[in-house]
Amino acid sequence: MIVAHTKVRVRYAETDQMGIVYHGVYLTWFEVGRIILLDEIGLPYRELENAGYRLPVLEANLKYLKPAYFDDIIKIETLIKNRPSARIKIEYHLFRKDELICSGYTGHAFITDKGRATRPPLTFVEKTSHHFN
Amino acid sequence: MIVAHTKVRVRYAETDQMGIVYHGVYLTWFEVGRIILLDEIGLPYRELENAGYRLPVLEANLKYLKPAYFDDIIKIETLIKNRPSARIKIEYHLFRKDELICSGYTGHAFITDKGRATRPPLTFVEKTSHHFN
Amino acid sequence: MIVAHTKVRVRYAETDQMGIVYHGVYLTWFEVGRIILLDEIGLPYRELENAGYRLPVLEANLKYLKPAYFDDIIKIETLIKNRPSARIKIEYHLFRKDELICSGYTGHAFITDKGRATRPPLTFVEKTSHHFN
Amino acid sequence: MIVAHTKVRVRYAETDQMGIVYHGVYLTWFEVGRIILLDEIGLPYRELENAGYRLPVLEANLKYLKPAYFDDIIKIETLIKNRPSARIKIEYHLFRKDELICSGYTGHAFITDKGRATRPPLTFVEKTSHHFN
Repeated sequence: MIVAHTKVRVRYAETDQMGIVYHGVYLTWFEVGRIILLDEIGLPYRELENAGYRLPVLEANLKYLKPAYFDDIIKIETLIKNRPSARIKIEYHLFRKDELICSGYTGHAFITDKGRATRPPLTFVEKTSHHFN
Repeated sequence: MIVAHTKVRVRYAETDQMGIVYHGVYLTWFEVGRIILLDEIGLPYRELENAGYRLPVLEANLKYLKPAYFDDIIKIETLIKNRPSARIKIEYHLFRKDELICSGYTGHAFITDKGRATRPPLTFVEKTSHHFN
Repeated sequence: MIVAHTKVRVRYAETDQMGIVYHGVYLTWFEVGRIILLDEIGLPYRELENAGYRLPVLEANLKYLKPAYFDDIIKIETLIKNRPSARIKIEYHLFRKDELICSGYTGHAFITDKGRATRPPLTFVEKTSHHFN
Repeated sequence: MIVAHTKVRVRYAETDQMGIVYHGVYLTWFEVGRIILLDEIGLPYRELENAGYRLPVLEANLKYLKPAYFDDIIKIETLIKNRPSARIKIEYHLFRKDELICSGYTGHAFITDKGRATRPPLTFVEKTSHHFN
């Protein structure tokens, strides 16, 4: 398993007139968590793109348990629980203090910068495989 | 069943550097579809809010089948298949021409403007129930 | 002078917890106006990009006169008043019914897809010049 | 003069298909800078709102000098140069490393939570006035 942690502070731009964070914003926070996870395994997403790879989102699932509010500090826990194959599942838990406010996952697959399906880059396999023994 | 149709034209702001629409934007398009569906059943969301109700998103699920591109015309089909109860499930199919590019659903429940769970407003029940006989 | 008109309906995603549209969203509406103006002169922005050009924003100015609210229909008037040269100034007036709620402008210059400054494409000059005699 | 510093890391969601940050996003970064400045003078915006005040944006001006890219660390310098009166002008300088990439300002005035123009709250005057002697 691979786990990474980071946090965001809620921006005013992210709220809506219900006085809470707009539900679409959480996918951007998932992205923030994913970027940190890739940093921590030593494969920043910027480098993956420079090497000719893209990791688009093919699926997303979110459960909104509690609202998030302007100025909240939201802790983002990002996990890869299973050895990535052609398909990579990334899970997210969002917390305000110790309260779980949202959980979800995204599904991904590597493609080339021409849009073709491709195996994960070798460096990705090397840097992640020891987490799943 | 209730079905509504509308369309959006992809804004430049909605793209990302992959050259496609950012995946989080689709939840805003789902919202656009939902608003039209509420219009068509005669209960615009603005009026629901003015009457003291909110219909927050409790759950969302998206499958991205094909990318959407800048300037595309995206057709949004929005459906309520089952009689709404405490929980309302709304489904979405997004098309570019005749090609399905995304499908998904959101789960909702009515709350009051104080944030309390509440039954659906009577007008909502009245205006939707004949669709499910 | 070149003038184009279009309209947008305010999305819930575009509001913030002040109960009005977030001020940053107006730049996206300016973009919507600009795209329509380019359509109307016969040079859709998508085609300009396909031909190897980009028209980035170098400057923006906005005066917010009245708030915009969820579900409002906002009319967007987009104008090029002066013959475009190396620098193109585009102006915007936003209305709710007949009330002016925002005015502003953006400044642009053509660049190539490699990021180099370039003259406006010949087709752009041809399609716009008769508007400024 | 009051000055505050913070930084943001560019999110993928903030880029567009030109491969750079969408120009509208900078207004959100200005907001991030403004929030930190209010924190540092001891008047977090959340508390201002709780006390019944709002500080909407009445005007905005941006000059884009260099593009910002995904994953860049952008330093935000936020300044109030002149003693705030009915109108408050806030300036922003955005840097990537030592390079100025954007400058701009926003104009604000306090209103009540009912939308009425009002003088700045006394605590705001008290906490800012010693900066302008």
